[in-house]
Amino acid sequence: MKEPQSIATLASRFSMLPGVGRKTALRYAYAVIDLTDREVEEFCESLKEVKHSVKLCSQCGNFTDSDVCDICLSRQSKQICVVAYPKDVTAVEKTGAFNGVYHVLHGTLSPMNNRTPDDLNIKTLMTRLSGVEEVIIATNPDVEGEATAVYLARLIKPLGIKVTRIAQGISMGSELEYADSVTLSQALGRRTEL
Amino acid sequence: MKEPQSIATLASRFSMLPGVGRKTALRYAYAVIDLTDREVEEFCESLKEVKHSVKLCSQCGNFTDSDVCDICLSRQSKQICVVAYPKDVTAVEKTGAFNGVYHVLHGTLSPMNNRTPDDLNIKTLMTRLSGVEEVIIATNPDVEGEATAVYLARLIKPLGIKVTRIAQGISMGSELEYADSVTLSQALGRRTEL
Repeated sequence: MKEPQSIATLASRFSMLPGVGRKTALRYAYAVIDLTDREVEEFCESLKEVKHSVKLCSQCGNFTDSDVCDICLSRQSKQICVVAYPKDVTAVEKTGAFNGVYHVLHGTLSPMNNRTPDDLNIKTLMTRLSGVEEVIIATNPDVEGEATAVYLARLIKPLGIKVTRIAQGISMGSELEYADSVTLSQALGRRTEL
Repeated sequence: MKEPQSIATLASRFSMLPGVGRKTALRYAYAVIDLTDREVEEFCESLKEVKHSVKLCSQCGNFTDSDVCDICLSRQSKQICVVAYPKDVTAVEKTGAFNGVYHVLHGTLSPMNNRTPDDLNIKTLMTRLSGVEEVIIATNPDVEGEATAVYLARLIKPLGIKVTRIAQGISMGSELEYADSVTLSQALGRRTEL
């Protein structure tokens, strides 16, 4: 005997989320039964809303509800912090240690996965560099993140712009998204020139 | 700076699920952006489907898509296993150690939370007892589960029916839902008469 078909189906949907295994997915599916009709309705609306209203900022590439994101609109800075993913912007912002603007690559260079510079949001970055004094590269401290940092440094340094890398205060192999704010804050403070 | 409004809203929806904190909820919300439109559509349909199609079996009270659940339809048994929640049926079924039918109370007695016998699915249980030889009470081995077991035993034993309790092989204070199949299987095998 198994759970009702509709529960099994909903569980399989939850399984698409990161880190959700079969048991957790079933637990979520059963929990949905206890939600009110209104809550389920709102849940659905939010799911669709995210797909329809979330766009990429035309300047930095971060997620936004409008054409240009809040950070690009409200900040003038000669420092650009380059990150791989939008979630990394959230992580750096949480430290409060950086007041500049961001640029989201939406990935890292990875020959293994066939991700070349053309697949990353690099062209727009190059158009944003006039007047910029420093580009801080805050990709993850893993092989792909390092490769991306080196690639960008070679591209940008010839333009006379300082290119720095967040300090390896974050342990090798870990992910930026999960770093605690103190560690990430230190890594920003101790950044080294490439 | 915060995440876009629609992301924050969706994250708050995910927070309604059991064990999902703010960070996990945000992670799920960001993951939804990477789903296809079709996947989001299917996700919504499944959410609503569960709310609309999942009913309670008119006999045992377990979740089902039809009027009577698969177990009640397919099994004739003189043993009824009484559990607090539908997820506990899944747990017991997984052991393969029980071939009888179930009865789902949808809760346990709890004076603290104002849950009295009238709030539980007990009346239907009493109507199912003719011809039954044994009622196995498989509520959690915690205060409320024990109280419910004692209450049911007092109600059912006078009818000349054997009332048993799953053995306390499961450690006190833990939850049935998370027990491994071996432990739960042993607890069923060593059940003691109340």
